[in-house]
Amino acid sequence: MIYLDNAATTFPKPQSVANSLVRGIKCFGGNPGRSGHLLSLRTSEKIYNIRENIANFFGGQTENVIFTSNCTHALNIAIKGILNKGDHIILSDLEHNSVIRPIFAMSKDNNITYDIAKTFKSNKEETILSFKKLIKANTKAIVCTHASNVTGAIMPIKELGAMCKEKNITFIVDSAQSAGVLDINIKDMNIDILCTAGHKGLYGPTGTGFLILNDGVKLNTLIEGGTGSLSVDLTQPDFSPDRYESGTINSVGIIGLGAGLEFVKKLSLNRIYEHEFQICNKIYQQIGNMNNVKIYINDFNKYSYVPIVICNINGITSNQAVSILSDKGYCVRGGLHCSPLAHKKLGTIDEGVIRISPSCFTSNAEIMQFLKDFRLVAKK
Amino acid sequence: MIYLDNAATTFPKPQSVANSLVRGIKCFGGNPGRSGHLLSLRTSEKIYNIRENIANFFGGQTENVIFTSNCTHALNIAIKGILNKGDHIILSDLEHNSVIRPIFAMSKDNNITYDIAKTFKSNKEETILSFKKLIKANTKAIVCTHASNVTGAIMPIKELGAMCKEKNITFIVDSAQSAGVLDINIKDMNIDILCTAGHKGLYGPTGTGFLILNDGVKLNTLIEGGTGSLSVDLTQPDFSPDRYESGTINSVGIIGLGAGLEFVKKLSLNRIYEHEFQICNKIYQQIGNMNNVKIYINDFNKYSYVPIVICNINGITSNQAVSILSDKGYCVRGGLHCSPLAHKKLGTIDEGVIRISPSCFTSNAEIMQFLKDFRLVAKK
Repeated sequence: MIYLDNAATTFPKPQSVANSLVRGIKCFGGNPGRSGHLLSLRTSEKIYNIRENIANFFGGQTENVIFTSNCTHALNIAIKGILNKGDHIILSDLEHNSVIRPIFAMSKDNNITYDIAKTFKSNKEETILSFKKLIKANTKAIVCTHASNVTGAIMPIKELGAMCKEKNITFIVDSAQSAGVLDINIKDMNIDILCTAGHKGLYGPTGTGFLILNDGVKLNTLIEGGTGSLSVDLTQPDFSPDRYESGTINSVGIIGLGAGLEFVKKLSLNRIYEHEFQICNKIYQQIGNMNNVKIYINDFNKYSYVPIVICNINGITSNQAVSILSDKGYCVRGGLHCSPLAHKKLGTIDEGVIRISPSCFTSNAEIMQFLKDFRLVAKK
Repeated sequence: MIYLDNAATTFPKPQSVANSLVRGIKCFGGNPGRSGHLLSLRTSEKIYNIRENIANFFGGQTENVIFTSNCTHALNIAIKGILNKGDHIILSDLEHNSVIRPIFAMSKDNNITYDIAKTFKSNKEETILSFKKLIKANTKAIVCTHASNVTGAIMPIKELGAMCKEKNITFIVDSAQSAGVLDINIKDMNIDILCTAGHKGLYGPTGTGFLILNDGVKLNTLIEGGTGSLSVDLTQPDFSPDRYESGTINSVGIIGLGAGLEFVKKLSLNRIYEHEFQICNKIYQQIGNMNNVKIYINDFNKYSYVPIVICNINGITSNQAVSILSDKGYCVRGGLHCSPLAHKKLGTIDEGVIRISPSCFTSNAEIMQFLKDFRLVAKK
């Protein structure tokens, strides 16, 4: 089996991540922050260290790293936590349903209005202008993906961050496809809330994700409950992370995520990106010359895209292609990838696209084999 | 180290649970429900089987088992999902902050009103009457813990369920302390929404929990996002579990939970309860005779309590006692256990209580050793 669906979740995980789950469940099995006994304290300390490592990696403060079960959970905390009745929010035309659906739900129930900014893949200025034009007096936040999960296009986050800062607008970034692949520093980029998954480019297990709040950002709570702190109060604690983490946290998963982050740091973002980019570049070069294959990206330049290849085979839907490739032992993804706006933009809302996404483990030999079989499938 | 804080999270976990995490990450590493390739399909099938096993164990329908990150997350989905503006809800005076805090937040933001029903530990009828008296025309739901996480007292869930059915009120049960210890059947007990943790009596890893909806229960959504289904729609799918599970689910954790459930089924609820009850009974008998020790439960009868012992040592707070015992190698919990109402009822809101909670792994030899040292601590 050759796995090329790493944009959905990375596979395999590093051996150190699998080991850390066993170590987590055997050595750090206490409930962190819930008692003063040695196993609870030891687990608390371990979780604190991972929180600190994440904070350092993304340029944030340790206590402002908030663990969630996935990136969708993080985005819901961010979007619902920042908006109050009557507020306006702008999202890009590449956003995932994890952004669209919470905003749409709030527009029905909470008198929130929204606008969708057009993005331009190779024109930063036009993209920024597009957001700027939509800003109103009641615009509270802008939410933008760092990189599209469909096209892979990288958005001008730093420039958007600077604009948001100038306009005093909260800037929320979905880095599900970029964390562990591109350099992110919330201070330098003026990101107010960074949301991401733990199980993609950071090589953690499923069930992990987090958001990082920049200094001074305070949110309404989405979930309330026991925090192990200020137990007498009927309200959530005022301080992060307790305010946003209710109930027993996924300590075992977080320990796995910590191991994933260490793996990424050792390998380095640069080496990971270079390796995955050259693989995608090779795929684009080859499939671009196949007769029956339609490609959508003609400017696959370094640091314009995260390592994702999309295409279609004429005469069959993307899901049919996925099925045929699966029978031959390849794992790629078809359909809409939960991002209808991006597909409307691409003109692929009906057929979806075949998405091929490598990881740092994908070898050139695997890609040669994949391309050989892909060519045969496309010829039929 | 002797671990007696199993009411917070069970430790150790069965070896099969640790093994299943590795198997999960190595063999079921696809993103379930997200693609048509073999690894995704294999993972989907595995998760479906576990969903089915959970449904069968609790008497529900497979598609109505909704995975969450913990019991607090499940309770927030239930409480916030069932209440609409102007509704009234009744909770018991033993509820955890995972119930109190979401209701209090809704009372501030969403015009929800609530009342707290007094419970009577050895009088089912009085407890039921106490809830009944508080029912108003706009009472939408009753939420009650199956067993208090402080005193261990078991509530008359079946009788409350029958009353709720008669009055057409949604019945939400928090079974964080009872699942895997007491028999629960949502049909027989007329439970509309059962919420529980995966990492306590079900011996799953942290990061797991679920709710089970009884037939016909439909909730407003708490979190929206990608579901891998109906991706073109701006709204969440109408059907369970997709409606309530957004973003990548914790497949690795759920596989661990599945192994935990199999472990519980093999051992049987009856054997687990009998073992843990006799341990608690032994502790109560011994500490009840210690001069400096205050106990709060004088009717520790079988099936009146889940296996939890609470006490205090005169002259020191519960947290001080926990610290001293921790230095001697024992893990027990002190403080308020995130349940201020139960402590107000007990009269321990200032000092909290020492809570001693065994698991199926706790041996009689460990308890003998613990009691010997506990006696020495109490003497000082």
